Amino acid sequence: MARNDGRTVDQLRDIKITRGWLDHAEGSVLVEFGKTRVLCVASFTPGVPRWLKDSGTGWVTSEYAMLPRATHTRSDRESVKGKLGGRTQEISRLVGRSLRGIVDMKELGENTIVIDCDVLQADGGTRTAAITGAYVALADAISWAQKQGHIKANAKPLTDSVAAISVGIIDGVPMLDLCYEEDVRAETDMNVVCSGDGRFIEVQGTAEGAPFDRVLLDSLLDLAVAGCATLTELQKQALAK
Amino acid sequence: MARNDGRTVDQLRDIKITRGWLDHAEGSVLVEFGKTRVLCVASFTPGVPRWLKDSGTGWVTSEYAMLPRATHTRSDRESVKGKLGGRTQEISRLVGRSLRGIVDMKELGENTIVIDCDVLQADGGTRTAAITGAYVALADAISWAQKQGHIKANAKPLTDSVAAISVGIIDGVPMLDLCYEEDVRAETDMNVVCSGDGRFIEVQGTAEGAPFDRVLLDSLLDLAVAGCATLTELQKQALAK
Amino acid sequence: MARNDGRTVDQLRDIKITRGWLDHAEGSVLVEFGKTRVLCVASFTPGVPRWLKDSGTGWVTSEYAMLPRATHTRSDRESVKGKLGGRTQEISRLVGRSLRGIVDMKELGENTIVIDCDVLQADGGTRTAAITGAYVALADAISWAQKQGHIKANAKPLTDSVAAISVGIIDGVPMLDLCYEEDVRAETDMNVVCSGDGRFIEVQGTAEGAPFDRVLLDSLLDLAVAGCATLTELQKQALAK
Amino acid sequence: MARNDGRTVDQLRDIKITRGWLDHAEGSVLVEFGKTRVLCVASFTPGVPRWLKDSGTGWVTSEYAMLPRATHTRSDRESVKGKLGGRTQEISRLVGRSLRGIVDMKELGENTIVIDCDVLQADGGTRTAAITGAYVALADAISWAQKQGHIKANAKPLTDSVAAISVGIIDGVPMLDLCYEEDVRAETDMNVVCSGDGRFIEVQGTAEGAPFDRVLLDSLLDLAVAGCATLTELQKQALAK
Amino acid sequence: MARNDGRTVDQLRDIKITRGWLDHAEGSVLVEFGKTRVLCVASFTPGVPRWLKDSGTGWVTSEYAMLPRATHTRSDRESVKGKLGGRTQEISRLVGRSLRGIVDMKELGENTIVIDCDVLQADGGTRTAAITGAYVALADAISWAQKQGHIKANAKPLTDSVAAISVGIIDGVPMLDLCYEEDVRAETDMNVVCSGDGRFIEVQGTAEGAPFDRVLLDSLLDLAVAGCATLTELQKQALAK
Amino acid sequence: MARNDGRTVDQLRDIKITRGWLDHAEGSVLVEFGKTRVLCVASFTPGVPRWLKDSGTGWVTSEYAMLPRATHTRSDRESVKGKLGGRTQEISRLVGRSLRGIVDMKELGENTIVIDCDVLQADGGTRTAAITGAYVALADAISWAQKQGHIKANAKPLTDSVAAISVGIIDGVPMLDLCYEEDVRAETDMNVVCSGDGRFIEVQGTAEGAPFDRVLLDSLLDLAVAGCATLTELQKQALAK
Repeated sequence: MARNDGRTVDQLRDIKITRGWLDHAEGSVLVEFGKTRVLCVASFTPGVPRWLKDSGTGWVTSEYAMLPRATHTRSDRESVKGKLGGRTQEISRLVGRSLRGIVDMKELGENTIVIDCDVLQADGGTRTAAITGAYVALADAISWAQKQGHIKANAKPLTDSVAAISVGIIDGVPMLDLCYEEDVRAETDMNVVCSGDGRFIEVQGTAEGAPFDRVLLDSLLDLAVAGCATLTELQKQALAK
Repeated sequence: MARNDGRTVDQLRDIKITRGWLDHAEGSVLVEFGKTRVLCVASFTPGVPRWLKDSGTGWVTSEYAMLPRATHTRSDRESVKGKLGGRTQEISRLVGRSLRGIVDMKELGENTIVIDCDVLQADGGTRTAAITGAYVALADAISWAQKQGHIKANAKPLTDSVAAISVGIIDGVPMLDLCYEEDVRAETDMNVVCSGDGRFIEVQGTAEGAPFDRVLLDSLLDLAVAGCATLTELQKQALAK
Repeated sequence: MARNDGRTVDQLRDIKITRGWLDHAEGSVLVEFGKTRVLCVASFTPGVPRWLKDSGTGWVTSEYAMLPRATHTRSDRESVKGKLGGRTQEISRLVGRSLRGIVDMKELGENTIVIDCDVLQADGGTRTAAITGAYVALADAISWAQKQGHIKANAKPLTDSVAAISVGIIDGVPMLDLCYEEDVRAETDMNVVCSGDGRFIEVQGTAEGAPFDRVLLDSLLDLAVAGCATLTELQKQALAK
Repeated sequence: MARNDGRTVDQLRDIKITRGWLDHAEGSVLVEFGKTRVLCVASFTPGVPRWLKDSGTGWVTSEYAMLPRATHTRSDRESVKGKLGGRTQEISRLVGRSLRGIVDMKELGENTIVIDCDVLQADGGTRTAAITGAYVALADAISWAQKQGHIKANAKPLTDSVAAISVGIIDGVPMLDLCYEEDVRAETDMNVVCSGDGRFIEVQGTAEGAPFDRVLLDSLLDLAVAGCATLTELQKQALAK
Repeated sequence: MARNDGRTVDQLRDIKITRGWLDHAEGSVLVEFGKTRVLCVASFTPGVPRWLKDSGTGWVTSEYAMLPRATHTRSDRESVKGKLGGRTQEISRLVGRSLRGIVDMKELGENTIVIDCDVLQADGGTRTAAITGAYVALADAISWAQKQGHIKANAKPLTDSVAAISVGIIDGVPMLDLCYEEDVRAETDMNVVCSGDGRFIEVQGTAEGAPFDRVLLDSLLDLAVAGCATLTELQKQALAK
Repeated sequence: MARNDGRTVDQLRDIKITRGWLDHAEGSVLVEFGKTRVLCVASFTPGVPRWLKDSGTGWVTSEYAMLPRATHTRSDRESVKGKLGGRTQEISRLVGRSLRGIVDMKELGENTIVIDCDVLQADGGTRTAAITGAYVALADAISWAQKQGHIKANAKPLTDSVAAISVGIIDGVPMLDLCYEEDVRAETDMNVVCSGDGRFIEVQGTAEGAPFDRVLLDSLLDLAVAGCATLTELQKQALAK
């Protein structure tokens, strides 16, 4: 089955991971899944929020947002509206949970890392691109903090890597890494977050049209696990540079 | 393996579905999953939001909230804080999507149904209780509207029923319908929303501790599907009264 | 003169006071004035707000709210609108003042009690039902705190009881405990809060149509004082169970 | 009994009513009750809010606020805090109701008058000064609108005048028109709004300390009615200039 | 060239500076530029915001606002809208910067002065009137604080005075101190803030229509500097009383 | 005098203007002034806000914002805080006014263009970079609209170009195009917006330390006019590609 950009059903879009995209941040990554571009910036601060003081453990959190014209038509700014939309909060929480899934907070020590994921251009899969890029920014921030001595050199705050991909069913066919045009046509939409060893950190599947059965669910999971494995490899290559 | 309330791992808590709990609402259900009590109220209004005018289709949405002392310690009101928390919005969106998954908007016609799910007491599983109760309130509101002539008597706005249950892994063991005490101990937490025919409308699984593998995911899905089937049966009995 | 529910002009609706309606709260009361149902929940916390630190005195406050479909038609949530309406704040302040009118803050010690009054169904008189039920929840929370040792066993934080009732003039006739249908027709509307010994804690009378004279004011006060006396008796019976 | 400013218990402070205090507004009055100074400005607009369109009736409403340093110490601005306090909303509602109590909305026709009451300096009794001054501003705005032809020359939108005064009990003694220093010491505080013919539009009494009995209530009402009668006379004199 | 109020192009409107306009504030000035009336109130508080603790330096800030009917037609209150408009914040920041331009924070010591500038009536030039009046209120508050011993008697917190005036180009002609009617017709609008010695603290010029050239800019600056010199003289006279 | 990046006092940083940086927007420009990077995106919509309907004229406006980690340390998001800061609103208004200064709204017709200026990295001069880049994005959006037929092919909505630069005084020396490190040290800070023909659209000078005199003001204006002339040339080159 041909996709309109010529990909096979189990093929990722062109993935680019550009480290050090900003000059000041402890970790900064421009991640691209095709035309989707997300700037992931990790800010490291010694110390933790009050509720973690003297606990010996650190904190990792994330905020996700879209520039107003990331999308095909302009959206109003949430800062102008004076409140965060549900979708924004939901994705921010998802990215934060996904990253915490591979961080050992004891090893991180009493330090805080905030990862801002700002979508510069959206063409489907922004949350999965955000998670995939955020991991690399997080890794860079941790390396920086170890070089600076904020985290001990022999500490292992990262227990694994994390990557995410979207899968969906279009005209009954499971497909990997949906672009926007495919996403709006999908009957079922699923986002899967995997650790580097191929296990699940988060699975979120939604029937947009009719409910889906176990067989389709299984095939979606298979596609996603394979896609995450490829992303894991690309993250490794990026971090090796 | 003994659970602290004596249930087996695949056993639901006592489920009660009380219809007509309020005097004025078109559909109102008090749903109880053990000590968790959620008031689900369906409000029917002829007409649709502006963006659906003259589309011939209706709209179903939901708002979820907790009373301040539903929980063990009192929480501040979101109305006093002046903003909705991320969790509240996330669950409101989930309940709405789950209900829309079994509604044929064309058959509903240009009518709007809002289902308010207010948690009077929380003991784990409030979102799944909310979905399960909301379906019954929705069904009652549709019956009311058909009797009133707002919806044609031969229309079939409901394509199926919908129910939801939580499952989780505690000490490596998959368990059904976690109470609060179990929920905080769970390594993995999953909410599954099923249509009456046993297919999936929503699957949301989260690793709270270590990532989980495909085998555990499969066993959680099995437990959840069975739990939803029981809930579907209880919904039918409640609606038959 | 016949009222549409068959009551005499000086007759209360059926009053029910159900204690211990929730499992976790220190005091929880479902109070019903006919179809009006308010859940009054007292949350006890050792300690006081900053401005009372080291004063040796405690604090009692209240928050009143309505569920969106408590009324005949659905209202938007104040949490969604992002601000509290004037009516909500006004009643919250009234309930708090009324309760503080019978609390000896020195005897309470440096402890805080918040009473949440959430209207589950509204049929007139929600603020007076809230005050009447809140007193019972408050008394239960204080008993609990004395049993737990947070308040000395021989302390007397309650100087009296407090109850409240609405009265109004319909077609020139003073009437007790207006239901919603009567309330909208009333030319004058008055809420009276009495201590258990029959004195006044709060009197709020408003001409909805023409101004009212002293003779009508006096007859309204007479009716209200008698109504509060009955409520005081019912509170005693409830607390004696 | 001597008051600290030498007044007798039934004596008003110096009352000044200055009309036409601003150059552009349809009605503008600086009202002074001793050191309390409130600027009351009536803005007339042809037309009504949407919910009154084609009803043939008008609308009168009011907004009350305090400048940040009206009081002895500076308060934060509600505009900076981003929300209206309960006290502000409560008084705004009271002033609006009081004015509507003497307006015939049919005679006003489909016109809207908003009366802004801004406290420039506060020394007790700001809400009663606001009502007393707002009436004069309202009368001026109506005269203006009749001269301009927005309201028919022979219409009678005002059915009476309205004035308000505070009374309270200090050391057991009922007193009229409390200044700030007296207000904080009062055991009972009452605000009474009277129509020009001496009947009640609003009565709000609050026990600040112990509950109060019927005898004290009666003596407070007597004092207040006499005080309002004097204010009514001063309003007439001001409007006659 | 005749202006519609008979002034010459380089003539200020009638300027009045009334000190001690309120009874409680440490400094309070009603400043009038023709029909523009601004109440400038300086509130002195010992101590500084947290970020200046133990710095040995003080803080001066300002908040500007308009009463809803200061203008020809009524504007909604920012407190009711729940947010500050851009214009309000911009002017508040300008007034604060202008005052800080002539304050030696070391000499002020760890004290805070907030100057509230509330526009009672607006007829053009409200921000420049606010700065001009605010300086006088600030000087009074500092004198008060020196008398009270909060600031050392020999300290010199004020390094100079500050005044401000608007200038603009109408039909190609530069003019001083525009009233509202002139302001809306101006092609270029400039606000100039000068220290008492005639130097610049702030220069803000905006082309409302076509861009303006250097020759016009120079003539506007000349006019403004002369206008500020006159205001400086009037401030001295007011403070000398 | 040597600057720490080796520039002469009248030298701009490296300026880069990259057109078409996004795939969907009608105009999108990444503008770089040294390390300062601003994404300027013009969104074209046929039609105008309600208050311009049937006026035959269009509307151009702008919104400016910073990503949270554009700066050296992370700032909280204004969307999370729920309100726009004064600085953000002030700059948004400045950018909008500057662009409107060179647009003929009649020629634009009833069309709206919103230019979003989002600072990806901040190193001083973000508002002047924003204006300079926004003009190019605006020009591209107008070209697009003319090709699409939304604006007539022979219309001339742009009366000129617009560019902006910052100047400041450091250690008594006027300098062009301050980077962040210079900006914090500057005694006087000025932003100048010029039309392509070298006239002024906006001049904003602020004494950060001591007031500045006319001689320094003149030298700052000279520097800025020369800097804007260079930017105008670079804009032309970019648009010629």
